[in-house]
Amino acid sequence: MSLSNCRIVLVRPRDPNNIGAVARAMKNFGFTDLAVITPHPPVWSEVVSAVNAEDVLAGACVVQSLDEAIADYNLIVGTTDRTRVEERQTVYTPIDLIRELSAADYKLALVFGSEKHGLTNEDLSRCHRVMSIPTEPNCPSMNIGQAVAVCCYELIRESAQGAIVPRPAETATAGATEAALQSLLEVLWLIDFVLPGNEPDLTRRLRGSLLRLNPTKYDIEMLCGILNRIKRGLQ
Amino acid sequence: MSLSNCRIVLVRPRDPNNIGAVARAMKNFGFTDLAVITPHPPVWSEVVSAVNAEDVLAGACVVQSLDEAIADYNLIVGTTDRTRVEERQTVYTPIDLIRELSAADYKLALVFGSEKHGLTNEDLSRCHRVMSIPTEPNCPSMNIGQAVAVCCYELIRESAQGAIVPRPAETATAGATEAALQSLLEVLWLIDFVLPGNEPDLTRRLRGSLLRLNPTKYDIEMLCGILNRIKRGLQ
Repeated sequence: MSLSNCRIVLVRPRDPNNIGAVARAMKNFGFTDLAVITPHPPVWSEVVSAVNAEDVLAGACVVQSLDEAIADYNLIVGTTDRTRVEERQTVYTPIDLIRELSAADYKLALVFGSEKHGLTNEDLSRCHRVMSIPTEPNCPSMNIGQAVAVCCYELIRESAQGAIVPRPAETATAGATEAALQSLLEVLWLIDFVLPGNEPDLTRRLRGSLLRLNPTKYDIEMLCGILNRIKRGLQ
Repeated sequence: MSLSNCRIVLVRPRDPNNIGAVARAMKNFGFTDLAVITPHPPVWSEVVSAVNAEDVLAGACVVQSLDEAIADYNLIVGTTDRTRVEERQTVYTPIDLIRELSAADYKLALVFGSEKHGLTNEDLSRCHRVMSIPTEPNCPSMNIGQAVAVCCYELIRESAQGAIVPRPAETATAGATEAALQSLLEVLWLIDFVLPGNEPDLTRRLRGSLLRLNPTKYDIEMLCGILNRIKRGLQ
């Protein structure tokens, strides 16, 4: 699914700063298509929570009814607190939704209700699916901005695996590690930590520890610097 | 990892209502161990955002330093906006963290910095790992409550797969669906929609559609009721 094929729909949100928080979460994960159903268009200039996502707010589609907001979408998913789901409905988790989206080319509208009452049965009857985030039964209802953040995260989760370019620190070469080990052994001789019989065994143990720690080039350079100073101090 | 082995640590948060939002997200996903590093202990009674999670706030460990907050934990993971990561560090995603947690029995402290500046290099030097949520480069910084919600969701994501008890609606039996189809055909005959030659083909197509739609027992009962009324109206 392309991110541009996904609309977040807020049905009668009460607090304009929650709309701003939703816009911010959307933009964090690359979503830009926001629709707000409200009888009184919000005054965006009063919203302070849309940090960095003012463009999402400014571009929001403000309409009077859910029907208008979802008319051009072919998979309408209503979100609900799981304790409110009726017997007849099958509840999807965000993971179920991802599976469904991978099966066909959908234009997805993900619909969230008001902070206080969620979606009405009237609203839910317009949805192909009802989805709940798997929250704890003793605290099932999420903050709307947090719920949108979790859903948007789940929608990009798989494809974002490569998004953070791995910059693993450069690990030390075997040669550099061995040189540090030898330097360490010199110090251990100087402080009488090595006994005539135990050198081979001690060396093996220390080498094993050093390799298991998988030090970076930087770690080994620092270790060698410290050991050289210690040697000078001892001699 | 047991949820009780995971502590959320907030380093010098500025807005007490953000602490409340964090507490709510934690409780949504079953986490209760919160530590707050602050020079001035917050006045919890003024926090209105911890809906249903006042107990998490009341039980929070309020300390003066990060060292105190993490002393008893053996995997310290600092979160950061990915654009702030230094060259030398390897950045983990939440999924990498999950993989690491599955490998050993850790007591995890997940550390979040202040809203404005995040964690300092001093803070990050106390962390075994640096983790970033894979946000968009043009809007990398998340609201702290939303970031905690996403991390807590990822931590319970796998194990919560069974948490929403599936209550699939009872789908209609083949017999009930076929009876509805025959009822529909009677109506189609009455309105001259069936031509003498096309009945077998039409029947197959309609049966195919009905089965593909996988109607529930309830759908079929309603359909039969409607068709019976139409038949009566037409006769």
